[in-house]
Amino acid sequence: MLDRVVVVGGGAAGASAAARARRLEPRVEVVLVEASGMITHAPCAIPYAIAGIAVGGMVTYTADEFERERGIKVLLNARVTDIDVDKRVVYIDRGGMYERLAWGRLVIATGAAPSIPRIPGTDLKGVVTLRHPAYIDDIRRVLETASRVAIVGGSYLGIEMAEALLSIGKKVLLIEKENRPLPTALDSDMGEVVARELISRGVELHLGESLTEIRGRDRVENIVTDRESYSVDAVILATGVKPNTELALRAGIRLGSTGAIQVNEYMETSIDGVYAAGDVVEKFHRVLRKSVWIPLATTANKEGQVAGANSVRGRALKFPGVLGTTVTRFFNLYIARTGLSTREALENGLNVESRTVKARTKAHYFPGASEVYVKLIAEMPSGRIVGAQVVGWDHAVASYIDVVAAAIAGGMTIDDLFFLDMGYTPSTAPVWHPLIVATRVLSRGRF
Amino acid sequence: MLDRVVVVGGGAAGASAAARARRLEPRVEVVLVEASGMITHAPCAIPYAIAGIAVGGMVTYTADEFERERGIKVLLNARVTDIDVDKRVVYIDRGGMYERLAWGRLVIATGAAPSIPRIPGTDLKGVVTLRHPAYIDDIRRVLETASRVAIVGGSYLGIEMAEALLSIGKKVLLIEKENRPLPTALDSDMGEVVARELISRGVELHLGESLTEIRGRDRVENIVTDRESYSVDAVILATGVKPNTELALRAGIRLGSTGAIQVNEYMETSIDGVYAAGDVVEKFHRVLRKSVWIPLATTANKEGQVAGANSVRGRALKFPGVLGTTVTRFFNLYIARTGLSTREALENGLNVESRTVKARTKAHYFPGASEVYVKLIAEMPSGRIVGAQVVGWDHAVASYIDVVAAAIAGGMTIDDLFFLDMGYTPSTAPVWHPLIVATRVLSRGRF
Repeated sequence: MLDRVVVVGGGAAGASAAARARRLEPRVEVVLVEASGMITHAPCAIPYAIAGIAVGGMVTYTADEFERERGIKVLLNARVTDIDVDKRVVYIDRGGMYERLAWGRLVIATGAAPSIPRIPGTDLKGVVTLRHPAYIDDIRRVLETASRVAIVGGSYLGIEMAEALLSIGKKVLLIEKENRPLPTALDSDMGEVVARELISRGVELHLGESLTEIRGRDRVENIVTDRESYSVDAVILATGVKPNTELALRAGIRLGSTGAIQVNEYMETSIDGVYAAGDVVEKFHRVLRKSVWIPLATTANKEGQVAGANSVRGRALKFPGVLGTTVTRFFNLYIARTGLSTREALENGLNVESRTVKARTKAHYFPGASEVYVKLIAEMPSGRIVGAQVVGWDHAVASYIDVVAAAIAGGMTIDDLFFLDMGYTPSTAPVWHPLIVATRVLSRGRF
Repeated sequence: MLDRVVVVGGGAAGASAAARARRLEPRVEVVLVEASGMITHAPCAIPYAIAGIAVGGMVTYTADEFERERGIKVLLNARVTDIDVDKRVVYIDRGGMYERLAWGRLVIATGAAPSIPRIPGTDLKGVVTLRHPAYIDDIRRVLETASRVAIVGGSYLGIEMAEALLSIGKKVLLIEKENRPLPTALDSDMGEVVARELISRGVELHLGESLTEIRGRDRVENIVTDRESYSVDAVILATGVKPNTELALRAGIRLGSTGAIQVNEYMETSIDGVYAAGDVVEKFHRVLRKSVWIPLATTANKEGQVAGANSVRGRALKFPGVLGTTVTRFFNLYIARTGLSTREALENGLNVESRTVKARTKAHYFPGASEVYVKLIAEMPSGRIVGAQVVGWDHAVASYIDVVAAAIAGGMTIDDLFFLDMGYTPSTAPVWHPLIVATRVLSRGRF
């Protein structure tokens, strides 16, 4: 059975691992075991599907395509109930039919699940989480008869759902316990820009309020915070996610300090022959030089590649870790960040300085420019760039953060970034690019 | 007179140098000597001014603002006729009034001028070059009565003028002697994409044809190439530019092998106390590790900063050189490149491999995506990224090239770029970013 790779979970990481293993070693049998009825599901699409913006699939590939075109065996609606790492088998429940499947190499890609707050009323009708594209019809049904909807959590998902709900005519209340939206992503100054936009688009924004209870007889009628009570018809819990580690934990696979599965750069777990990838594992943060847990589809895809390749080729690929790059949007406001926020840097004992500039996206004489706020953070006295936040009304500003990500990965300092040969034409940037302006301001008169 | 800095030329480099010197040492007298009637002039704006797109100024600052707000003495319509580096004076012609001005430090920022082909007829009425915003009214007058206009040279300026002329209803012929537009920027495969777009927008494109003569009695009537003769009402010569080195050469300042002024990383020329910056100097190419001549406003601005700072502070700043990043657009087609093209790499003896991919700018289910072609070039066997070209119908793709510029500056390899933590949200990129897809294809099955 050494020639069989079993992958548990058909999301981004699992599908990527299965495809990679099979591609590299066509003689190896690859079995992808997925608990839902679809693979390569894209939870990022849920808000856009609700809004009616997303066209076509919530999936990238169907199970049929994976089987026919790639020669991967896909078991759908097949829940792995246990992993035995000594006997090298997994136990599978396929709707009451139980099976065991032996493996030579195992890839655990069980992903993450919504974290439900421990308060009364979360089981009422009309309270939903956004966990998986397979359940999108449930959400639609709940929203059908709702006119006032509370979103709990000003996370990426919360912000994206706020856009979705506004665009289908709902009244939206957004409850966030911190004093700003996107509290883990942005510092307060940048969060304020997002807050103003939320309000200006009609979101009833409640910052600094914690949900304490959801009330109703059968269906939700009110939500109660530590300050107020609000009458609503539906509640969307966007209160974060947690890694699905139950199977791994029971199998004796080591979890890290973040609570997610501990892996090394080869995506190897503590058990020989067992790999893990995607939202269920912790990630090495390249700036902090320690493990963090940032669940993201892009990371999952790459980790899946590494786990898949290494499951059939040994230590063929290394995953270097993450920088904490994330992007979201709220209507035409694009919000992106990478590296550390000032708050994160300070919490981790780094001596940093930061500056925020307001600039424009095109040459001063070119029409159609929009405003962009750029915050740049550098470690002092070295001047090493450690983070950036960008908020602006043009989708192109999202790419600014990729430039900073590359700068951080390359160990660039303020001087290096100032002198970076960035492109310029009047329709795409001012002659002094907003990133360069931010660098300049951060240089304390050096430039 | 050691406390006076004289800057010759008030374009991007000169204005930047003057502002920097004065800012750092307010007690130093700074005199900016400019031959035309304006400073901080932006030639990049000319096509958009012709098209009527550019709103407001062709300049960033007026001479008055420079004098009043920054305390810089500005001499307009003042042509420096000679530099004496032994006596440390410049001789100035102010419309027949001659002056001499002593300096402690001198910054030469005389820029570049159009290179006029040595063929008959370039002095006919109706033949213009695009040299300086001060002469934009001359161009407008010529175009007023013209309906068929030939643009000679498929350079950035040629492409941008083609858009401008089409948008004001002219019939446009574009003559380029190479077999593709933007021949110094793009390889043939990417050039073809641009060529198709030029044709589809109505440009009469003549590739592989050299201009041999311009004919007419008083005003231009025909242009003649090595293949054909075309009847036209006006001709725009976009046949490249050359550095304005005459003054420097006469003063005994050393020119480099490119024909532009030789400077070191401090922007020091071969004469002590004499700095030079902008289009008149050659630039160190960070990939080729040799001098090249790439005249660009962004580079000029930064070199001006360095020359200005060092003119009052000694060796305070270093300019690390350029990567060859350039961007242009033709209507909604954005064309960007950095580093080396395959052709340049081969000409310089590098062993490279390249791949071109066609991708989309958003997630597959997200509406409004457009196509983008990405070409990535790496040195082998090291895998070091040495160049990229991007062509796509969305202004955001211009930023892709900034990411690659940062990657090249950071010495990244194919593996490093593949694993770069780039941002993702369905509205700004596919989950596999076009750059990552290109990296993947270039990896020869490694990813």
